[in-house]
Amino acid sequence: MLLESAYGKARVRLVQLTRRADRHDLRDLTVAIRFQGRYEESYIAGDNTGVLATDTMKNTVYALAAESRSDHPETFGLMLVKHFLDRNPPLEEVRVDLIERGWARIRSAGREDPHAFIGRGPDVRSARVIASRERTTVGAGVTDLLILKSSRSAFTGFIRDELTSLPETTDRILATSLTATWQYRSTSLDFGLAWGLVRQTLLESFAAHDSASVQHTMYAMGEAVLARVEDVAEIHLVMPNKHHLPVDLTVFGLENRNEIFVATDEPYGLIEATIAR
Amino acid sequence: MLLESAYGKARVRLVQLTRRADRHDLRDLTVAIRFQGRYEESYIAGDNTGVLATDTMKNTVYALAAESRSDHPETFGLMLVKHFLDRNPPLEEVRVDLIERGWARIRSAGREDPHAFIGRGPDVRSARVIASRERTTVGAGVTDLLILKSSRSAFTGFIRDELTSLPETTDRILATSLTATWQYRSTSLDFGLAWGLVRQTLLESFAAHDSASVQHTMYAMGEAVLARVEDVAEIHLVMPNKHHLPVDLTVFGLENRNEIFVATDEPYGLIEATIAR
Amino acid sequence: MLLESAYGKARVRLVQLTRRADRHDLRDLTVAIRFQGRYEESYIAGDNTGVLATDTMKNTVYALAAESRSDHPETFGLMLVKHFLDRNPPLEEVRVDLIERGWARIRSAGREDPHAFIGRGPDVRSARVIASRERTTVGAGVTDLLILKSSRSAFTGFIRDELTSLPETTDRILATSLTATWQYRSTSLDFGLAWGLVRQTLLESFAAHDSASVQHTMYAMGEAVLARVEDVAEIHLVMPNKHHLPVDLTVFGLENRNEIFVATDEPYGLIEATIAR
Amino acid sequence: MLLESAYGKARVRLVQLTRRADRHDLRDLTVAIRFQGRYEESYIAGDNTGVLATDTMKNTVYALAAESRSDHPETFGLMLVKHFLDRNPPLEEVRVDLIERGWARIRSAGREDPHAFIGRGPDVRSARVIASRERTTVGAGVTDLLILKSSRSAFTGFIRDELTSLPETTDRILATSLTATWQYRSTSLDFGLAWGLVRQTLLESFAAHDSASVQHTMYAMGEAVLARVEDVAEIHLVMPNKHHLPVDLTVFGLENRNEIFVATDEPYGLIEATIAR
Repeated sequence: MLLESAYGKARVRLVQLTRRADRHDLRDLTVAIRFQGRYEESYIAGDNTGVLATDTMKNTVYALAAESRSDHPETFGLMLVKHFLDRNPPLEEVRVDLIERGWARIRSAGREDPHAFIGRGPDVRSARVIASRERTTVGAGVTDLLILKSSRSAFTGFIRDELTSLPETTDRILATSLTATWQYRSTSLDFGLAWGLVRQTLLESFAAHDSASVQHTMYAMGEAVLARVEDVAEIHLVMPNKHHLPVDLTVFGLENRNEIFVATDEPYGLIEATIAR
Repeated sequence: MLLESAYGKARVRLVQLTRRADRHDLRDLTVAIRFQGRYEESYIAGDNTGVLATDTMKNTVYALAAESRSDHPETFGLMLVKHFLDRNPPLEEVRVDLIERGWARIRSAGREDPHAFIGRGPDVRSARVIASRERTTVGAGVTDLLILKSSRSAFTGFIRDELTSLPETTDRILATSLTATWQYRSTSLDFGLAWGLVRQTLLESFAAHDSASVQHTMYAMGEAVLARVEDVAEIHLVMPNKHHLPVDLTVFGLENRNEIFVATDEPYGLIEATIAR
Repeated sequence: MLLESAYGKARVRLVQLTRRADRHDLRDLTVAIRFQGRYEESYIAGDNTGVLATDTMKNTVYALAAESRSDHPETFGLMLVKHFLDRNPPLEEVRVDLIERGWARIRSAGREDPHAFIGRGPDVRSARVIASRERTTVGAGVTDLLILKSSRSAFTGFIRDELTSLPETTDRILATSLTATWQYRSTSLDFGLAWGLVRQTLLESFAAHDSASVQHTMYAMGEAVLARVEDVAEIHLVMPNKHHLPVDLTVFGLENRNEIFVATDEPYGLIEATIAR
Repeated sequence: MLLESAYGKARVRLVQLTRRADRHDLRDLTVAIRFQGRYEESYIAGDNTGVLATDTMKNTVYALAAESRSDHPETFGLMLVKHFLDRNPPLEEVRVDLIERGWARIRSAGREDPHAFIGRGPDVRSARVIASRERTTVGAGVTDLLILKSSRSAFTGFIRDELTSLPETTDRILATSLTATWQYRSTSLDFGLAWGLVRQTLLESFAAHDSASVQHTMYAMGEAVLARVEDVAEIHLVMPNKHHLPVDLTVFGLENRNEIFVATDEPYGLIEATIAR
């Protein structure tokens, strides 16, 4: 019995150039499309009658990009979901995920070059549009935002049982590669402005917080976003704890001044939360 | 408002050696632990009173592995969830994910070396144990099983609109990197035997199927598992379509015999389904 | 001044099917081509007159694969270098690197399916052909061969200075992801047979060795290959030391029996050597 | 016979905090150390008498970082090579490679936070110090500098044979992930200033160039660096051609305006050159 199913196209890469009189604008998107609906017969009987080929989904990304200029990944996603819902009767829910890599203009002699760009990172902008026949929602996010604070970060007062060897600390490095996704309360707003404001609020609240734990800082960051950006309904934060372990220099006859750390990739704490109004 | 939260430790790597008289046995696991429960105060107030440090979770993996020998990742996961539930009153649900990398014995002069191993892959075995105060479930899986069939794979009869350029084909390469996860109906069975049987059934049904599409083959594979392995309640399959595009040799004055293909990583079709009894 | 230069095409992926009466054979290659020669004018003056486009190099891979059947990556590489040298007067040296991913036939009910395959790994087979107007050499290799021994591995007697904290050990896990490349003494031999013999010799000598260090075992493996496989002129081995650190269980009130290890990816020892006749 | 050998430690990760009165400074380095010398007996006889454990190399990185503050990766590398040469008689040549990940201060309300940082990328700074008993050289570099120009990039006039299908173009996107390494003429200079100047010159010359090919632009970039930065003796550039293929929209009844591209990762052109004075 087919309990659930979905199909679509992932990693559709689109670089769109807008040729203006005095400069080019560049948009670099990676798009994924996911269909859910009444496609049981393709699974059970191999009947492809109502199936839109995933290759056609890919073509649609390019054709719609060429036909119209979207200002934001979110608006392009909205165009795509409308196109697919209008033309595919079995389609019940369509999800479009977009990742935008940022490019800045190369600066030469104090001015921006109109046609040359440098890739920015490591963080990228994400957007997600989900639409059914009844309802459309728009979300956005930031992925792999690498942040670190070297002050006002403690971790004390946790359970100490016979398997606990971690010392308490009131002065540690807190570092994470933040992935945040949030839901907007509306499908028409200035998505670029909102995105920039959320990202900046995440950075500022992370920097400003007196942290008792990753959990504690995560919650403060989520609350700060909800307090500052009215258009956000809720926000989901995932913060791997990229542990920076102090090296014990006394082994080498040196003093520990809490200045030398080894950054580790694994194992890592993984903390997540959804904060809503 | 804290709508949802979870925390835990990921990428805890454990290599366990069992020193037998005549040989060593080797188990190579990567473990992730995830707690959900009444931990709001750690997020909202920075109060870590009831918080088990993720570092302690890591220690627990090593201590429990040392104290008792599990025959399977699933049984080790069961030990871990019991340990955590017994000792953490705020804990409501704990999830343990385990990845086992396979090692085979190196063969020399026709016999297996008792102490030397070669890593197998690329596919790995997975297991997931989820437990609350009321209920424990055990699942298993295989990740990144790379399979390809060069016969009996077609894709025809799909929608042809003005954005469709994909030709129909009755003879294509079908390739995927399968990730399958399934739920067992019980928490005590021979997990190794069941796992091997599911994996073999997936391979055989993939090979034997007359494929009208990825969807069609995926469903047949799921049904084959349910038919053959009674202990499986349901199975979830994810099959990225690793497209192998025939190279058009006529451009070079050569004949197309459907023998030369370019393997591509992106974009790719992404097909998934859950098949249940 | 242009001191040195090279250009070419990398990551040309070729899957070649041979349609036999009773079965299909499958070859999965990734090819890289590198030209060195009198191409200064393309760099200095932007004059592309003598430049073969890297896109044409890619086409050549597909066309030559279609026109003739090579039994081995090495023979296909030899065809490619001849083709390029014959037709490009400025070309002084051409290098072709080939990576072959292994596929095994899926077995069903004790017999091999003639048209369905499972990817093997993680190790892959490599080949390198380098040709100038005067000389052609053929080499081969194995990449990412994951091997581990849990007995007869020591590391003692090394320098102990005030920065040395590593304890001596006579019983440790020795694990590596071996990359070996070797040069053949001839350009015509049974490359498949030789490759299998070298790989098997590396495995057996690794298993059999009484190891005083990674260096020690590496040398023994190289010598074993030279002793057993006459066609090999020299062999280069690279062995990252994938450290498996014993977990100190006494912290948890448990006994250390040298059975519980944490596998680490970084930092790692990196040992290499070339062993010749 | 041991023809060549080397051993060392790779991926030693060091995060160094400098606690100033009003702010913290952060340095994030990944260090690799490589020894070559008279270590034959460790390979051939398993005699570790003169061997410095790679674990001790790692410790040395931490101890030397703690003892002295280097302003640049290059100066830290110089300290390390001196330390190792002074204390290891068999050591003939030591190479230290350093990768520095950049961190910028988080800005809040127009001012820089003294203790909170955001990771920059994707490009990283590299440095390499090589020292023997006779001679020490210092080099630097930039890795993974993602750059793209959408104007003044052509590729015409190349060989057209029967395997050439690439059309000529006078208006294409030129994109690469540049890796540049250069040698300094001295071991004492303001390494930070020089590095910034080389990087900026690479960006500006890439943006300004009228490109007839990747080769052509690469050479111009190298010449620009040598012309502007006296301290650089020679520079090596590696530029994978990250192809952006125009999508043929006429298939969908749309006009090609050279604005819609698909970015591809493979295959890719790989161009490299060393430009010297």
